[in-house]
Amino acid sequence: MQVHIPLVKTVDNSYNIEIAPIEAMHFETKVAIITNPKVAGLHLGYLLSKITAKELYIITVPDGEEYKNQDSVNIILESLFNHRFNRKSLLIAFGGGVIGDMTGYVASIYQRGIDFMQVPTTLLSQVDASVGGKTGMNNSYGKNLIGAFHQPQSVLIDAHFLQTLPQREFGAGVAEIVKMAVTFNEDFFIFLEEADLSNKEVLQEAIKKAVQTKAGVVAQDEKEHGLRAALNYGHTFAHVIESQTSYTGFLHGEAVAIGMVMANRLAVKLHLMSEDDAQRVVLLLEKYNLPTTYKIANSESFYETFFLDKKSTDSHVTFILPVGIGGVKISDTIEKKLVLSVLDEF
Amino acid sequence: MQVHIPLVKTVDNSYNIEIAPIEAMHFETKVAIITNPKVAGLHLGYLLSKITAKELYIITVPDGEEYKNQDSVNIILESLFNHRFNRKSLLIAFGGGVIGDMTGYVASIYQRGIDFMQVPTTLLSQVDASVGGKTGMNNSYGKNLIGAFHQPQSVLIDAHFLQTLPQREFGAGVAEIVKMAVTFNEDFFIFLEEADLSNKEVLQEAIKKAVQTKAGVVAQDEKEHGLRAALNYGHTFAHVIESQTSYTGFLHGEAVAIGMVMANRLAVKLHLMSEDDAQRVVLLLEKYNLPTTYKIANSESFYETFFLDKKSTDSHVTFILPVGIGGVKISDTIEKKLVLSVLDEF
Repeated sequence: MQVHIPLVKTVDNSYNIEIAPIEAMHFETKVAIITNPKVAGLHLGYLLSKITAKELYIITVPDGEEYKNQDSVNIILESLFNHRFNRKSLLIAFGGGVIGDMTGYVASIYQRGIDFMQVPTTLLSQVDASVGGKTGMNNSYGKNLIGAFHQPQSVLIDAHFLQTLPQREFGAGVAEIVKMAVTFNEDFFIFLEEADLSNKEVLQEAIKKAVQTKAGVVAQDEKEHGLRAALNYGHTFAHVIESQTSYTGFLHGEAVAIGMVMANRLAVKLHLMSEDDAQRVVLLLEKYNLPTTYKIANSESFYETFFLDKKSTDSHVTFILPVGIGGVKISDTIEKKLVLSVLDEF
Repeated sequence: MQVHIPLVKTVDNSYNIEIAPIEAMHFETKVAIITNPKVAGLHLGYLLSKITAKELYIITVPDGEEYKNQDSVNIILESLFNHRFNRKSLLIAFGGGVIGDMTGYVASIYQRGIDFMQVPTTLLSQVDASVGGKTGMNNSYGKNLIGAFHQPQSVLIDAHFLQTLPQREFGAGVAEIVKMAVTFNEDFFIFLEEADLSNKEVLQEAIKKAVQTKAGVVAQDEKEHGLRAALNYGHTFAHVIESQTSYTGFLHGEAVAIGMVMANRLAVKLHLMSEDDAQRVVLLLEKYNLPTTYKIANSESFYETFFLDKKSTDSHVTFILPVGIGGVKISDTIEKKLVLSVLDEF
């Protein structure tokens, strides 16, 4: 299956997301593949059998969210300057969301911006992180607090890489697929309830639907002035959970699964979602062994941590709330008391 | 005189460049003024008498091109995170080109981009650096090699700040004014030949003409795919000179003055410019005590340093050449031998 999804960004920019086995290609420029030691060991041979360039470089950075920082960015920049990359050179992000976000960020600041291509190797990055042009890195204050909007030149989604994906990471990817369905597409949610994602064709169909959903949202609101914020469903809570567990307790998708359950509890209290629908989401997440609960030691301090999120302003926290299944509402006027009462339940 | 120059950037973005005494304004957001100790000592009182905000912060970084680096960027970022700046907050760049470039760069990467305003305090930054959205910092490989295109929300050009400007820095600003005239506007060049820029009204007129010229070019080619590169007239040479003198021997505008003379020598050899016109440029620069020559120890190594410039590709150096006075040509096919013969003359 080969699907081209043109993502119209601005008048002078659009790009293709290709869901298919990677085809052979040659670049008449300098190209650097940015990856980590693990992905390189598993899959670089496959990628190198497809991609050639006038000059090709491989740069690896340490594997893991805790290395999505200035040190790793500096490793990449140093190599590019050392090998005299110029404005016509190309970067290829080859790995999961961490590699994609950092490579995109480097591409956005290297000589005021060069091209990059996404070749995501995890389910999570295939359905979410690689699409939309959000790039960035973490610092001591939190996740993705430094970054830029910088769209890739293209995204190549090849199911080949998922064969070696550990079951837990697969589940983390499913969490983001569920996110798109709950907020934007009830039919897609029903499809997922009935689907067997271990079947390769069914999985590919799910990836396609998720990417189409995301691309559609981003095309309407690239810089997150409105609608795009809905894609942060579950994330307001997830970022606090990840921060409290030092980004090591849960995979990002797992934290999002818990975050969606928390957002749903808030939506139920506000009569935006029925108990039944909230339960359907929990069941779907459990089908993929995703966590749906988290022990909150102190609701007040959990709440305070919301304010480090980019979506929060001085005194308001923005919540993305499901409206039934397939609908979504963005609100920054939820009373603190109500939020605390939800947190107290966990 | 109050001049509004709408700079149409993309479909959804334009901003005003105001050449006038700053008017009182109040912001209902968090605002940080980024400046250096010297400018703050001289002019912060004046600025604070005009600008108020819900929460106002002042951040200073060390003064000078050698501090336009990651350390200074980190000082600014740390303060913003510490005071919980959010996506609605505003940065104000208050100083010369170094402050403007770094503040713009921080604004481009802080939480994937926030607003910033330029209040340039040197002639050079008023006529050139503050207009056009180029932001960045230096690293060990050279100048402005890390950065982004990020347009300011507005630019306030107030001649008040020029009263305390040392004569040498004033001359450095004149060099960039001469640059605009030579490449784009012969009438403007003649105006400058006859003008007395120590007269405040005449100076303001010259600033206006220079800003109009630059804004017109940037509006046509924001990301420097073509025409905008012409604004680098003199800069290909200047960057090498600045690099060789460790950014301390000359002010940027002084290096540009020498660079223009070098570019003119190349243009004369290519029969693009007459000896007479080349001499007129030298005379105009000397009128403001600008340097017009530089001792090149080794032409080969001078030439090699061109390749670290962002405008250069693997094997070609891009030269901006005047065509008479008021015209410009961009070429990346000049023979190395010819360039060396020009360098040998210095």
